[in-house]
Amino acid sequence: MILSALVTSVAINLGLCFLFFTLYSILRKQPGNITVYASRLVAEGKVKEGGAFNLERLLPTAGWVRKAWEPSEEEFLSNSGLDAFVFMRIFIFSLKVFTFGGIIGMFVLLPINYLGSQLTDYSDFQHKSLDIFTIANVNNGSNRLWIHFCAAYVFTGVVCYLLYYEYGYISSKRISCFYSSEPQPHQFTILVRGIPVPRGSTCNDAVERFFQEYHPSTYLSHSVVRRSSKLQNLITDADKLYRRLIHLKSKNDAPQRHTRDGFLGIVGPKVDIVDQYERRLGNIEDNVRMEQSSVAAKEVPAAFVSFKTRFGAAIAVHIQEGVNPTEWITEQAPEPHDVYWPLFTVSFIRRWISKLVVFVACVSLTVLFLIPVAIVQGLTHLDQLETWFPFLKGILRLSVVSQVVTGYLPSLILQMFLSFIPPVMVMLSSLQGYISWSLIQKSACTKVLLFSIWNIFFANVLSGSALYRVNVFLEPKEIPRVLAEAVPSQASFFIAYVVTTGWTTIASELFQLTKLIFSFMNRIFRRSGDDFDPPSIPYHSEIPRIRLFALLGVTYFILAPLILPFLLVYFCLGYIIYRNQLLKVYVPKYETGGGYWPTVHNSTIFSLVLMHVIVIGIFGLKKLPLASALTVPLPVLTLLFNEYCQKRFFPLFKNYSAECLIKKDRSDDEHNMHEFYDKLANAYNDPALTPINYSERSDSRTLPLLHGSEA
Amino acid sequence: MILSALVTSVAINLGLCFLFFTLYSILRKQPGNITVYASRLVAEGKVKEGGAFNLERLLPTAGWVRKAWEPSEEEFLSNSGLDAFVFMRIFIFSLKVFTFGGIIGMFVLLPINYLGSQLTDYSDFQHKSLDIFTIANVNNGSNRLWIHFCAAYVFTGVVCYLLYYEYGYISSKRISCFYSSEPQPHQFTILVRGIPVPRGSTCNDAVERFFQEYHPSTYLSHSVVRRSSKLQNLITDADKLYRRLIHLKSKNDAPQRHTRDGFLGIVGPKVDIVDQYERRLGNIEDNVRMEQSSVAAKEVPAAFVSFKTRFGAAIAVHIQEGVNPTEWITEQAPEPHDVYWPLFTVSFIRRWISKLVVFVACVSLTVLFLIPVAIVQGLTHLDQLETWFPFLKGILRLSVVSQVVTGYLPSLILQMFLSFIPPVMVMLSSLQGYISWSLIQKSACTKVLLFSIWNIFFANVLSGSALYRVNVFLEPKEIPRVLAEAVPSQASFFIAYVVTTGWTTIASELFQLTKLIFSFMNRIFRRSGDDFDPPSIPYHSEIPRIRLFALLGVTYFILAPLILPFLLVYFCLGYIIYRNQLLKVYVPKYETGGGYWPTVHNSTIFSLVLMHVIVIGIFGLKKLPLASALTVPLPVLTLLFNEYCQKRFFPLFKNYSAECLIKKDRSDDEHNMHEFYDKLANAYNDPALTPINYSERSDSRTLPLLHGSEA
Repeated sequence: MILSALVTSVAINLGLCFLFFTLYSILRKQPGNITVYASRLVAEGKVKEGGAFNLERLLPTAGWVRKAWEPSEEEFLSNSGLDAFVFMRIFIFSLKVFTFGGIIGMFVLLPINYLGSQLTDYSDFQHKSLDIFTIANVNNGSNRLWIHFCAAYVFTGVVCYLLYYEYGYISSKRISCFYSSEPQPHQFTILVRGIPVPRGSTCNDAVERFFQEYHPSTYLSHSVVRRSSKLQNLITDADKLYRRLIHLKSKNDAPQRHTRDGFLGIVGPKVDIVDQYERRLGNIEDNVRMEQSSVAAKEVPAAFVSFKTRFGAAIAVHIQEGVNPTEWITEQAPEPHDVYWPLFTVSFIRRWISKLVVFVACVSLTVLFLIPVAIVQGLTHLDQLETWFPFLKGILRLSVVSQVVTGYLPSLILQMFLSFIPPVMVMLSSLQGYISWSLIQKSACTKVLLFSIWNIFFANVLSGSALYRVNVFLEPKEIPRVLAEAVPSQASFFIAYVVTTGWTTIASELFQLTKLIFSFMNRIFRRSGDDFDPPSIPYHSEIPRIRLFALLGVTYFILAPLILPFLLVYFCLGYIIYRNQLLKVYVPKYETGGGYWPTVHNSTIFSLVLMHVIVIGIFGLKKLPLASALTVPLPVLTLLFNEYCQKRFFPLFKNYSAECLIKKDRSDDEHNMHEFYDKLANAYNDPALTPINYSERSDSRTLPLLHGSEA
Repeated sequence: MILSALVTSVAINLGLCFLFFTLYSILRKQPGNITVYASRLVAEGKVKEGGAFNLERLLPTAGWVRKAWEPSEEEFLSNSGLDAFVFMRIFIFSLKVFTFGGIIGMFVLLPINYLGSQLTDYSDFQHKSLDIFTIANVNNGSNRLWIHFCAAYVFTGVVCYLLYYEYGYISSKRISCFYSSEPQPHQFTILVRGIPVPRGSTCNDAVERFFQEYHPSTYLSHSVVRRSSKLQNLITDADKLYRRLIHLKSKNDAPQRHTRDGFLGIVGPKVDIVDQYERRLGNIEDNVRMEQSSVAAKEVPAAFVSFKTRFGAAIAVHIQEGVNPTEWITEQAPEPHDVYWPLFTVSFIRRWISKLVVFVACVSLTVLFLIPVAIVQGLTHLDQLETWFPFLKGILRLSVVSQVVTGYLPSLILQMFLSFIPPVMVMLSSLQGYISWSLIQKSACTKVLLFSIWNIFFANVLSGSALYRVNVFLEPKEIPRVLAEAVPSQASFFIAYVVTTGWTTIASELFQLTKLIFSFMNRIFRRSGDDFDPPSIPYHSEIPRIRLFALLGVTYFILAPLILPFLLVYFCLGYIIYRNQLLKVYVPKYETGGGYWPTVHNSTIFSLVLMHVIVIGIFGLKKLPLASALTVPLPVLTLLFNEYCQKRFFPLFKNYSAECLIKKDRSDDEHNMHEFYDKLANAYNDPALTPINYSERSDSRTLPLLHGSEA
């Protein structure tokens, strides 16, 4: 890539971003788009749909930037929860790292690279290759490389300091959030699996007897888990129907209430939809009640056990309960509405095997992903297409079409395949037997992150056959050399990647194109009665993407510092846009208590060590073996630092200490606790088993508590 | 090695063993050797020294075999403790494994190997090389190799079944031992390190306040640790002197009580030793008292905290106590007399760093051990010796001398270096900051085991420069091929190793040559007043040795089944001899509750996987790639089996479950517990700080409770 091409690309993408922002600032003010651009505010009842036309709505304004910027950290934390707070800290942390890195990179390393003469390039400045700004241009054996060497040490030191500070800051926030939280059912409850039910007894009795025997002073109540997947489907249907009914009734709009009975509501006699819906709802309700009475008998040897104190629950979680370690397996319960019922597995051995299977599936998917993609991409060769679809021959011969097909189709196919990855990883994680949606998402986040690093970073760096790539990692000695040869040559590709993919995804996150189109279609086809479910932020696809850009920044800091200003723009945009989205669009549905930070920390450490390995290889290639050898302690020190952080901070993210739990238990208000205990006793009943009575409720027109979100 | 040489070697070593046994059965009956051959019985007061001469004492008898055989497992367990029981289970387990392996090996694999014709060997039977009994003799590509393939699967299956059974059996014994144990201080006590002492307060107050705040219902008492290494040395001196004094007084033997004052007790005026000793003891006592009063102020931020119930202690151990995970670090306390005071470290960061340093030291020692050995062995070359010590020239030219020097000296040097390893590993482990001698020994056991496997098995197999050896393990793909080439060719060496080193060490374990000589010297020089300290079995050197032989058996089962009968003899001898020693010689000083079994289990799994890797390589070399590929699942399945065992049984060896602890707590007798609590409150006081008064005690002639063994 030459300099002028980069400038062009930057200009185009800046223009695109600007266009998105303008469109957003106009569209967000249109009443129809309010469920797209302020869905959280709608769900919280702070904003109402509708409103009259006025001219101001057609002028682009930047007021949303100010509004997103304004809330202090504390306000943001109390408004959006700890997880969103941690998510924003990723941007702040990255901005700190790359501001420092950018200053060193642009004002120290870049001039040194440019002054080198390893790459002979006599073209004028405009046509110079970007490679002369990389370390590749520094002369072999030059003493100037020692500046790069120092930069590696200084940068690593600063990043580690920032990591340490951030880990400490977030863990202190986590603890203070815990202290300031209201009593919540999941703090008092544990999940017990693998309950050994004696012959002639029920699981219910076994649990009751065990915990009254061994935790007499703290045991409160329990609810046994039941197999209810069929019932759940029925209830979901009933829920949908009920919501549509409520919506229809609320409109009070006579013409809409009648439709024709026949095909697509176009032919047939006119009927009152409300009547029709009510009849169907009644039928489903009968089915549900029948199913409920049969499900009550289908016990599964697992139960949610609630205790009177948080400390009591912690004791039961941390001390192996039964003599046999594969029985009475305990873990902290998730929030009641976070429980993931569909794939609830109990048996120790089944969970273990499914974990193994998922692990193998995940590794194979990650390593072998590029093979099917490459095959499908191969199909887009023009001659191939012409033989397969002879009738296209005429069109394909047009130069515009052929350029689009050969230029964009392969990358489009890759993007399409990539977009399937987060859902697939979520599916794999859910097979692993996690009990809650938040745990599934957290585990999927790690999987997607590893996947992205392998398939975007390594696959681009180590071009060649897939088998060759795997082979490199079987010969550990060769890794630094291979990486040092391959990574710098991809610098201009990744700079372009940041500018195109990075900036565009951030801008389209603001613009929400797909949701906008869906909402538009909905309004056209008048199906607005369908459930409006405000979205929650998909951490498992967002965090890996952001961390991948950070990885690029860290690894290319020494090699090609030109990438850093573009990354800074990315993180600045990201900071303000995600702040806006988290305040206005995404609803915090559950809380992991900042559980994503350790993943971020680990990925940063990985980036640092990867950078070190590449630098070791580079110094070797540049005939400066002493620098190469002196860099070896750097990854070792970094890993030791990581080990220390794991010991110092990670336990805080796994569990709360006895001190915290007991303090918090004592601070509970005696009086309110009795009420809370009553609520707690029913919090973990399977939502499918609560008695339903839509017909009556739909008459009285009170807005119902939706299933699965009672707490 | 040829067959006749093997037969000769077996005959010689059988003769040696027989000689040892005969000598043992005569010597053990001599009254003077009673402290060597029945030291445990002496310490327990079941046998008295002395007795008159009778002829029967000079006749070799095998009564000790019957006596060692007689006790049932239950009797042995109650007599020698769970650790000794587990130690004997190693032999029983190995016997089961190698009986099965021996039958398959000798009656199925050996004939097949012998019937092959890969190695052309036309010599008569007597001069045939042992190699024709190994897999090397099976023809390349022969279908008979499928029998070896099946044998690998069947053998692995049987070993895994036996491992599973044994793990389950030992863990059930562990639990039943716990149930049947008396209340012991270490069950109720935890060690807390990293206590944050607020300014202006003492550690004592901090501990008291913390545990009364957070464990009010179960907290009983605590004792803060103090720096007392100087004091300990003084006390050790006093102890020694006191014991010698008691011994002298007990003899009531006037001539012995007087010695001359001068050089070596030969010249100078006659003095009463008792008077002299008493005066010195008095001086030391004064010093001790002075030091004790100064030590009392030197608090260390660590304490032993005792609780009223075992469950209370378990809660404090398992739940992180303070908010900061590097403070209030808890672990279960060891038995009071098992506490290892000298290297007691408190600071989290210091312990962490010393662990790292020890890890590095241990790895370097293990990997680089052979280099200094090889250098020292190189010095024994005759020409080298002649140039260094010219005056030896005449002697070295004698053929007998030169044979001894070149033949025995190198292996003698290796053995000498090897004998230093267990103490060195104990030293390294003690630097790691373990709190008890038993933990140090357990950790040293693992270290010595890894060391032996590397330096005896791998070093012999992969001859060549040390650097080359390390290199193989950097190219994982090459490992099976390299091992498959190297391991079978060393078969005859290892068969000889079992017959010579194996049988001899077992026999000399019975004979206890060094102790016999020491005791003899003691009697000659009349220093029997010195402390008689009955030994405890050095698990950290014995278990690795036994496991190394088992590793040889497992790896060579397929390759050279001829090794198995000799191993069976080894384990049979070992079973009866160690049973004898554990009943009569070694005193069980502390109890790890069967903590060595997981090490044994893991080493067996390692042997199996190593065997599989070699077999994969062998099938490759033998041009049977299908068998090679079909063997790949075997190590994977074995590792999965191990993973399952780790989940199913290992937790039982780490901690007791809530169920066990609470049941045991409830079974305690209310009345006796008050007495026990009183004892508990003082159990973990630093023995150096208890007031001493030898002078009075030595007058009253009561046998003292030795320091460090009050409980």
